[in-house]
Amino acid sequence: MHVTSEHTLDARTTERTFTIGDISGILWTPPAASAPAPLILLGQPGGLGMRRMYPRLVARARSAAAHGFAAVSVELPGAGDRTPLPGAKRARADLTRAIAAGEQPADDVIDRLILPLVDEAVPEWQSTLDELVHLPEIGERIGFSGGVIAVGVRLAAIDPRIAAAALFAGSHVPERTMHEARRVTIPLHVLLQWDDEGNDRARSLDLFDAFGSTQKTLHANMGGHTGVPQFAGDDATRFFVRHLGAARG
Amino acid sequence: MHVTSEHTLDARTTERTFTIGDISGILWTPPAASAPAPLILLGQPGGLGMRRMYPRLVARARSAAAHGFAAVSVELPGAGDRTPLPGAKRARADLTRAIAAGEQPADDVIDRLILPLVDEAVPEWQSTLDELVHLPEIGERIGFSGGVIAVGVRLAAIDPRIAAAALFAGSHVPERTMHEARRVTIPLHVLLQWDDEGNDRARSLDLFDAFGSTQKTLHANMGGHTGVPQFAGDDATRFFVRHLGAARG
Repeated sequence: MHVTSEHTLDARTTERTFTIGDISGILWTPPAASAPAPLILLGQPGGLGMRRMYPRLVARARSAAAHGFAAVSVELPGAGDRTPLPGAKRARADLTRAIAAGEQPADDVIDRLILPLVDEAVPEWQSTLDELVHLPEIGERIGFSGGVIAVGVRLAAIDPRIAAAALFAGSHVPERTMHEARRVTIPLHVLLQWDDEGNDRARSLDLFDAFGSTQKTLHANMGGHTGVPQFAGDDATRFFVRHLGAARG
Repeated sequence: MHVTSEHTLDARTTERTFTIGDISGILWTPPAASAPAPLILLGQPGGLGMRRMYPRLVARARSAAAHGFAAVSVELPGAGDRTPLPGAKRARADLTRAIAAGEQPADDVIDRLILPLVDEAVPEWQSTLDELVHLPEIGERIGFSGGVIAVGVRLAAIDPRIAAAALFAGSHVPERTMHEARRVTIPLHVLLQWDDEGNDRARSLDLFDAFGSTQKTLHANMGGHTGVPQFAGDDATRFFVRHLGAARG
């Protein structure tokens, strides 16, 4: 892990940019004097890139810090300045065409768009965790929050370090993800925008049903993809407080 | 309104039993010195009766009082010592038979069980409100919480005094209720137990979809009819705080 910059965001949060091999990311941590903080992995939507996402990421990191959590986000494969994933451009064009025609995109379009991203992003999250857990300021309780739901599902299914996940049922779900969901057994908090124009509500409900977790909660709100109300974010934070605990002082 | 008993439950709450004509109920109010308190109508499930429901009702009233709300509940038509509703016994037997056979109960069974109850209960709630709003300790903001969902839907659809409702999608829904739901436009908080054995999940989701409200939230949790987790109750309280405000001191 190579720290490329460090500055104090406010009294509660230090922001560090870092690289780990090809991975670049940002880590937000409570003051050094604090006890080890539970860590929340901040997922991102595909294709936007961390520079455009920064204002939203830092808002989520500040909200996490207010409850004693550290937070980290990494540039997704193919996003920002990274080399585009093979086939992603064509898959995205096919998706845009289907949505413009008012059709459900074909399964193979979703697979071509999402699965290569999942295949690359999940090992990168794991490499990031491998490094971060050695930092004295990072505790053992780790949660995953938001971003491409197929990434969160795979990571929650295969990495026992993830203790709880708040997922946003707002991206396309490959059939493979539906199967992987059955292997997820950690506490889940799933957000669904009921009228999300870019999303298949029935499939989102099927995915929620598929999760193997005995503790799972679905919060559906009105409005489209970007209309998540403020109180829904607060609910997600309370979910993490329940399952990761606050930082121990 | 005839107050039949009054005692202090704790420092925060006075409990009064009352009758209004044939209606009997319990009113919980904050200390007399407080400003007028928003009022939450505590719905009840059909058939149990207020005496059996009392421990749960008083717990909900205490939780409401902790946030500055008054609360009231009334004996449902046909419940407790009241004359059974015509046809209710046979309808309930038909329902029990269908559930035991693992079948969805026929529409007419649901109609016979629920609609006479709604037809009687809603005017009684309105008569209760007509009296309570004259009490100086009761404010103008009124919410409806829980109980038979068809009662809450009708009341929210026709009575403009109801400003917000937290409904439990855990009872059977007549087709007529689905239509009335379209006329409901107030903020809604809908609880659904995902694995509720006595309930039709798809119909509950259709009902949520049918509501005309632009502000509506669905919270689905695991477990059956009686397994609502504590944090789900806290979420409902926060919903009322957002929409009714706390008591003004």
